[in-house]
Amino acid sequence: MPPKTSPEATRDRILAAARSEFARYGIAGARIDRIAKDARTSKERVYAYFTSKEALYRHVTGQELTAIVEATAMDPADLPGYAGRLHDYYAAHPERYRLVQWGRLELDPDNTDPGVEDPIRATMAGKLERLRQAQRDGMLDRSWDPIDILVLLNQIASAWAGQAALAPDDPDAFDAFMRDRRAAVVAAVARLFPAPS
Amino acid sequence: MPPKTSPEATRDRILAAARSEFARYGIAGARIDRIAKDARTSKERVYAYFTSKEALYRHVTGQELTAIVEATAMDPADLPGYAGRLHDYYAAHPERYRLVQWGRLELDPDNTDPGVEDPIRATMAGKLERLRQAQRDGMLDRSWDPIDILVLLNQIASAWAGQAALAPDDPDAFDAFMRDRRAAVVAAVARLFPAPS
Repeated sequence: MPPKTSPEATRDRILAAARSEFARYGIAGARIDRIAKDARTSKERVYAYFTSKEALYRHVTGQELTAIVEATAMDPADLPGYAGRLHDYYAAHPERYRLVQWGRLELDPDNTDPGVEDPIRATMAGKLERLRQAQRDGMLDRSWDPIDILVLLNQIASAWAGQAALAPDDPDAFDAFMRDRRAAVVAAVARLFPAPS
Repeated sequence: MPPKTSPEATRDRILAAARSEFARYGIAGARIDRIAKDARTSKERVYAYFTSKEALYRHVTGQELTAIVEATAMDPADLPGYAGRLHDYYAAHPERYRLVQWGRLELDPDNTDPGVEDPIRATMAGKLERLRQAQRDGMLDRSWDPIDILVLLNQIASAWAGQAALAPDDPDAFDAFMRDRRAAVVAAVARLFPAPS
């Protein structure tokens, strides 16, 4: 662990503060001076590390997408299990789902720096290739285009992310409700994209 | 049609300007003075009609949800057809999808005025009751909870809303791509929630 005053420690504190600021306020609403204050550094240091608010947002979102990929590990031979893990991840980390959603609303997909690789696209390309391979290996129904498998599965697995308002308030009733929703998510993916028997 | 200087005409211009401002910038990012200027009126008049920026957002979102319900007409006996219509609606009006999505990120569901009926909840309650009735009538698989039918169907039908970045740029290729995606959306809902044979 780097000492608290090292450049690495400062950079880590900036990233942690940025994650929480962006998740709460979005990109336009985030304030670099609030991030700097939370990270016990200056606005100038934040810009020295990350050049712009949007670049900082893209950096923390890229880290978060990598964390989701690692925590949920897509297995083309068991897509219902993968959908259950994604659902659990979003249920445990609603603020990380929010963090990524802001970019879908606020960033213009036609106006991005072509030199910067979009982390969502890069992650998708790898997953699409693995789904295609599973189809060639006879482990997955070939009648679906892999892009539909991936996008529909993500939509189904994220159905309850940020939808807590529809759940009961009482904690026990809430837990029972979310258990039922998780079962429906897994059942839906099993019906659409069953694991090979 | 009311004359252009009537209070009704002013109110309609405010609503049109607000829809476009909120869809583009969200609630926090929207500026009442920009809405007033677009609507050729004053900030004071906007507040006289709608009391607050959030109240104005809720008003235009409520109108939009009513418009979606009317344009897409859920038929519990043909949910795949309904999913296709929803997909078409979002494809034709990406800015209306954005308008509603901002509220999911920006409005605190636990901090709403209990005197104001949430239009999303009110719309859902009516649809849930119709799905329940279709299950009682034997027109819909009873093994699903109606809330899962509704939420999963919405997620699947909106899978391509605001995802144009994944589609090809060339207009002909774009149209062919979106036709295939629409077919996959309808096929997925047909597999999950088939119409009675």
